[in-house]
Amino acid sequence: MEKVKVGVVGCGTVGTGTVKLLLENASVIEQRTGIRFELVKVADRDWDRPRPFEVPERLRTTDYREVLKEADVVVELVGGKEFAKKLLLEAIELGKCTVTANKHLLAEEGREIFRAAQKRGVFLGFEAAVGGGIPVIKALREGLVGNRIKSILGILNGTTNYILTRMYEEGLSFEEALNEARRLGYAEADPTLDVDGWDAAHKITLLATLAYGSFVEFSSVFVEGIRKVEHLDVELGKELGYTLKLLAIAKERDGEVEVRVHPTFIPSDEALAKVSGVYNAVMIEGDFVGKTMFYGQGAGSLPTASAVVSDVVQAGVFLRKGGLVPRVDWSGRPLKLTQNFYSRYYLRFSVPDRPGVLAAVARVLADFNISIASVLQKEKACKIAGNDSPVVPLVILTHKAYEQDVRKALERVKSLPVVEKEPVLIRVEEEAY
Amino acid sequence: MEKVKVGVVGCGTVGTGTVKLLLENASVIEQRTGIRFELVKVADRDWDRPRPFEVPERLRTTDYREVLKEADVVVELVGGKEFAKKLLLEAIELGKCTVTANKHLLAEEGREIFRAAQKRGVFLGFEAAVGGGIPVIKALREGLVGNRIKSILGILNGTTNYILTRMYEEGLSFEEALNEARRLGYAEADPTLDVDGWDAAHKITLLATLAYGSFVEFSSVFVEGIRKVEHLDVELGKELGYTLKLLAIAKERDGEVEVRVHPTFIPSDEALAKVSGVYNAVMIEGDFVGKTMFYGQGAGSLPTASAVVSDVVQAGVFLRKGGLVPRVDWSGRPLKLTQNFYSRYYLRFSVPDRPGVLAAVARVLADFNISIASVLQKEKACKIAGNDSPVVPLVILTHKAYEQDVRKALERVKSLPVVEKEPVLIRVEEEAY
Repeated sequence: MEKVKVGVVGCGTVGTGTVKLLLENASVIEQRTGIRFELVKVADRDWDRPRPFEVPERLRTTDYREVLKEADVVVELVGGKEFAKKLLLEAIELGKCTVTANKHLLAEEGREIFRAAQKRGVFLGFEAAVGGGIPVIKALREGLVGNRIKSILGILNGTTNYILTRMYEEGLSFEEALNEARRLGYAEADPTLDVDGWDAAHKITLLATLAYGSFVEFSSVFVEGIRKVEHLDVELGKELGYTLKLLAIAKERDGEVEVRVHPTFIPSDEALAKVSGVYNAVMIEGDFVGKTMFYGQGAGSLPTASAVVSDVVQAGVFLRKGGLVPRVDWSGRPLKLTQNFYSRYYLRFSVPDRPGVLAAVARVLADFNISIASVLQKEKACKIAGNDSPVVPLVILTHKAYEQDVRKALERVKSLPVVEKEPVLIRVEEEAY
Repeated sequence: MEKVKVGVVGCGTVGTGTVKLLLENASVIEQRTGIRFELVKVADRDWDRPRPFEVPERLRTTDYREVLKEADVVVELVGGKEFAKKLLLEAIELGKCTVTANKHLLAEEGREIFRAAQKRGVFLGFEAAVGGGIPVIKALREGLVGNRIKSILGILNGTTNYILTRMYEEGLSFEEALNEARRLGYAEADPTLDVDGWDAAHKITLLATLAYGSFVEFSSVFVEGIRKVEHLDVELGKELGYTLKLLAIAKERDGEVEVRVHPTFIPSDEALAKVSGVYNAVMIEGDFVGKTMFYGQGAGSLPTASAVVSDVVQAGVFLRKGGLVPRVDWSGRPLKLTQNFYSRYYLRFSVPDRPGVLAAVARVLADFNISIASVLQKEKACKIAGNDSPVVPLVILTHKAYEQDVRKALERVKSLPVVEKEPVLIRVEEEAY
């Protein structure tokens, strides 16, 4: 029986789940692979904090170097950037196979780490960095290896999906839904990484990098969170047959790639629209496979541990039986990222309920070559926060248009005397399936 | 640059798609893997029949032995059982890695083929045998390798899903929907394999074998097709909030495994219920990952080619870089298959609309320890085919009960003087998510 020694650094939520899995399911993994994965050491700075699963005394250490010394496969689950990076680079330098769930680090500074692993010829797994327990990275790299990837649409952040689900289903405001998510432990005290879209942006950066074979510069990814989402738009969208989701998108069009995260309307009868609460889903379209979707729990101790361990097993197989060091930047050409997206748009204007207003707005859109698909003007005046005069929301759904044209048109519309307040722009995706 | 020579035997629908993919996307596969996959030979008996993609003259042969001679990886896409088996065993004997999409052969006689591959130490891929382009076998074997599998629920046959979708959405009868499917090319002239559940049963046999690590005896799988599905039940189920699907199910309970295929009601707001038309989906529940779902096109030339090629690439990596020969029967114990399912049931009785009928039926169910969850009795009499007297449908939804008890209860109910016609039994799954 061949053996692989596994060590874990960082015993928080995911670390504890990983330890539990490696201890409880070692026998089934051994049966399936013919390799015995033995957990030899778990490092954490604090062994006094309460955990839902007790790590056996003999495995505990407070010195991560013990893990580096004893393990064949090193699992980094400390989070954060500085120490995690140092740890991964040290482990790689020692020739250890490594596994991490650290999307933040990989998306922002992954280039250096991926290249070190490639150069040293060691396996670096990060299945758990995207989509929690969903084996989406394996699907993208291996299951769909024969496909050119046309697009990826993902609901990649459970916190924001929970908030938007509650706004849609229960009519809550953003603040109410966020507070509820906090009470239930779905949102951190400081929810910035989630609510402002950064977490989803980290994840789509990694997926786009794998799909298109060239490092995506994180700073070039367009990111808009859900903090400014008004309940009125969730309601109006619902009436038009759309559900609002924080969608992470990567698509190729004419040699250019769009990578973006923003609130997005998708038709309510499509599968992605039904992904509710803290669940995640990723829709990948390939030139041969067509549309595929992968769904599951995007976070949490045990689901994420499932992904971590699938990487541990792949690393162990690589060590004992051989295999490929998967390439990350394989295309040999820099990616051309565009900010001039090509999309459909939901535009909401706050206008007085009197003749000629629609005509004036429509005229401007036409001037910028933006074609109108449908219009919703509500008869009853709404009270809009910060504005006491009764205005009605005028909603225009466009056909596909270029973002730059839409932005220019909005600037022009804003200068019209009839338009009050800042117009609302929400992008629309109709291709989720 | 390392090279792998690929040969295809059988150039029908899937074969043609595979040839097209290997020729058109060779460069992207080479970039991703660092290995050049070269298609060297394609064998078919008939090069005159029209194909949507022209196979270059230089690759064509009518002699499969040329493929065996020249290729490192042999792809079997001839279908059927006898010749396909001979071909696979010959290729394995020669030490070739093999890839097949043949669920029929593998489910019914796979044991011999899997064992030969394991013994000879060659890779045998069959991703395309289940779920078309969906990389579900890879997910089950590798992505979820750390999990004990609690259950698998799959919509694995596009033809029947198309028919049931049309019955549900448009109110068609089974015959009408089948004829429509035939016209559109979704159903074969002889639709037995699809409509009677055999194709789905082949697929769940393979998934259950992988999930539980022991060959599932195909003849022990419970199979009931959709041929007898009445439109009335589709309608009544819809009214109760359920959608009828042909579900393939494998679940473990107390050391026993249920493997079964039958029409099944699932709550209409669950994701599996939304899988419509010719799409497939598989829900896999693991002890750590929780519920995951994989969705995509379950058939067709190009999606299935995507799965075939992912196996070809895995085989090539195995040949050039090493790796694991994945185990099929790893548990070392025979599987205990039970036919005494534990499920919820939809029971429809045809009864006269008069007092005491419900009481009599309910009494019998209570005698067999079957607990009633809800009852629907329609006021208006229906005309039921083959019966001229006006009867009303009495629908009883049970809580979870043992199949044997339910069957005994139905025998007793049938002997009641008030019950006309054979009662209808449809199983209900509430856990799809």
